[in-house]
Amino acid sequence: MQVPGRAAGWVQMLQGRTAPAPDMGAVPADMISFGGGQPAVELYPLAAMARAFSRAILEDGRQILPYGSIQGLPALRAIVAKRLARRGIQIEPDQVMITTGSMQGLHLVGRAMLDFGDSVVVEAPTFSAALGTWEHQQPRFLSIPVDEHGVRVDLLEQTLRSERGRPKFAYILPTFQNPSGVSLTLERRERLIALAREFDLLIIEDDPYGEFWYDEGAPQMPPIRSLPGADEHVVYLGTFSKILAPGLRLAYLVAPPALMNVLVRAKRGLDYQTDALVQQGVVRLVEDDPEFDLEAHVAACRRVYKARRDAMLDALETTFSGLDGSTWTHPAGGYFLWLDLPAHVRDVDVAAAARAAGVEVWPGSFFYASGDGGRHSVRLSFADASPERIAEGIRRLERAVQVAAQHEGAAAH
Amino acid sequence: MQVPGRAAGWVQMLQGRTAPAPDMGAVPADMISFGGGQPAVELYPLAAMARAFSRAILEDGRQILPYGSIQGLPALRAIVAKRLARRGIQIEPDQVMITTGSMQGLHLVGRAMLDFGDSVVVEAPTFSAALGTWEHQQPRFLSIPVDEHGVRVDLLEQTLRSERGRPKFAYILPTFQNPSGVSLTLERRERLIALAREFDLLIIEDDPYGEFWYDEGAPQMPPIRSLPGADEHVVYLGTFSKILAPGLRLAYLVAPPALMNVLVRAKRGLDYQTDALVQQGVVRLVEDDPEFDLEAHVAACRRVYKARRDAMLDALETTFSGLDGSTWTHPAGGYFLWLDLPAHVRDVDVAAAARAAGVEVWPGSFFYASGDGGRHSVRLSFADASPERIAEGIRRLERAVQVAAQHEGAAAH
Repeated sequence: MQVPGRAAGWVQMLQGRTAPAPDMGAVPADMISFGGGQPAVELYPLAAMARAFSRAILEDGRQILPYGSIQGLPALRAIVAKRLARRGIQIEPDQVMITTGSMQGLHLVGRAMLDFGDSVVVEAPTFSAALGTWEHQQPRFLSIPVDEHGVRVDLLEQTLRSERGRPKFAYILPTFQNPSGVSLTLERRERLIALAREFDLLIIEDDPYGEFWYDEGAPQMPPIRSLPGADEHVVYLGTFSKILAPGLRLAYLVAPPALMNVLVRAKRGLDYQTDALVQQGVVRLVEDDPEFDLEAHVAACRRVYKARRDAMLDALETTFSGLDGSTWTHPAGGYFLWLDLPAHVRDVDVAAAARAAGVEVWPGSFFYASGDGGRHSVRLSFADASPERIAEGIRRLERAVQVAAQHEGAAAH
Repeated sequence: MQVPGRAAGWVQMLQGRTAPAPDMGAVPADMISFGGGQPAVELYPLAAMARAFSRAILEDGRQILPYGSIQGLPALRAIVAKRLARRGIQIEPDQVMITTGSMQGLHLVGRAMLDFGDSVVVEAPTFSAALGTWEHQQPRFLSIPVDEHGVRVDLLEQTLRSERGRPKFAYILPTFQNPSGVSLTLERRERLIALAREFDLLIIEDDPYGEFWYDEGAPQMPPIRSLPGADEHVVYLGTFSKILAPGLRLAYLVAPPALMNVLVRAKRGLDYQTDALVQQGVVRLVEDDPEFDLEAHVAACRRVYKARRDAMLDALETTFSGLDGSTWTHPAGGYFLWLDLPAHVRDVDVAAAARAAGVEVWPGSFFYASGDGGRHSVRLSFADASPERIAEGIRRLERAVQVAAQHEGAAAH
């Protein structure tokens, strides 16, 4: 029996909240993947991890496996603080929170900061999967274009000076940006902090790829959080997922003390604490395995990824330079580059044709909060395929672009 | 420089959102803990876990540690479905979602269902830490009293028939309830489903303690989800944290298909997936360790906790039966019992005096969403102390009640 006025069920109520979204998950084994942000599987340090987790369970289990610190194991927070110091971020461990992946960190900041319908500054293009973490608050996204020097801070300034209603924060991926591969210049970083101070704007600096730089000669770009005046205006996000394995949901954030209190409270209600075994396993891995050195491991990852980036740039040069209207970014690090295609092919057609041809790419429009950009572009990851497979994948992609162009041509008739 | 009209900083904005809350975390080693819901540390199956995680890393790492299924590893979902079948819940693995602790499951349901200011039915008393997972939506809590037979379903019915605006869901802990230790009768469970169907009300059945029954002679209470007609009206929540170790953030929920789609989407934006190593470690632990049997382990836990429950009931009978106005519940399972004290002592004074006397208890008022009950009661956990420590802890608690009574007497003058 339905009571009058109560006929609309919760199932119907929910249906308006479902919508398709790309999956970052696994692709078929026969596919060459330039798609998700998967680290190279063969780089996982499994032998060392097995030793470390075994010690964490047998030697530390009764100490660390009861309910514990919401903010994270102190030993792991100390490791994070020590590692960040090398990149110029000088903090105490109590300024660090361990999170269950960076996605959770982003969600926590949104949960703490956003009220329904608030504004948030995002880059265009941006890592749009992050924006889904704030879905419930339905923020209004103010998209600021990215050029070859990173986000257009001058246009952000115009927006800040003109907008009624202030954005609660700006979500920025300054270093080897996902999806474009570009990095924000030092001058723009400094200007961004000045704007943050003037407008009391919080900067969310998402830096999952910052440790993967490939051009040793070039000066390393300091994180925004490391620059003078940034302390009170930046939440910095880093992760172990990209340097160990993404199935380990283990990341961290650095936040000003007033915000940290709110984030701890929000995390309590989210998962109470990040898995303690995963935390202690990584503590053991980093601290006392005589056969494993995390920094040497990261350096080895850099060498592998650099070779893959070079292979992709070479393959694009060979295969796409003859295609009028094609240009691509030349990232100095990270996992991704951005390929602009001629205006007569659509990103979604290229992605569909590429999948049929055996190479996974992500359509450019996915990376625009407003959906109004990237329609002739695709994002390519070079991290998860060997140089040989990369060369083959780019050849497959070139054929897919031809197929998509024919499709467009046929549709025009 | 501050721009006019922008002077109120985000720090100030956040301060209204901070408030103290009890921590479920560790207590000093010299303290007897009747406080949090900690499983007994000595029951953690560490040797088997070390073997299982080692195999999960070395043999399965390259398969399971890339980004994977948001809903959870299929092998683990199959294990959950098989275990639940023994308790009468007949489902397929695709009706199961793996969550990063039950707290995350609760949060996900709230995120999917609640709009700002919606109503939610809760028990009084209830596991109030759960309510914090919906903090952002600021729901209005409709508290329904619990008696010795569980929540007063007759009063819930009155509320449903009288309330303007319908509650989005009812949060119910039917079996060995946290905090009271009581269980909902079969008759009330059936009536609850009938109401759920009539009013299109979703029931959140939170069942972290349902596997810990101690009175073999008594019939086991079937989960609400297992009863006829419950399929489309119940989200069932269970966990591995209480049978293995709580630092493992690994739990699960069972949801109707239409809601599952929304929950998967919400989880994507929360932590993308539950840690894959933790999932696969438990798969290996359950499936193919010749020296470890999970069901035998749970049975061993039951024996230990039963002895502790009996020790606490005996100690209360010895120590508190002479104290007029003291009554306590006699739980048939779970971790907790509820002690009502004479009306001249306050719960918070008792908890403070108990802490000073070396025993941790939680004040009863913490477990009321409205804060208007439990003022002369405390919750006691018997799971995390030996029978000898339990006897000593109850003696300390009795002295603490005397101290609190004197404090009240002095305050009355």
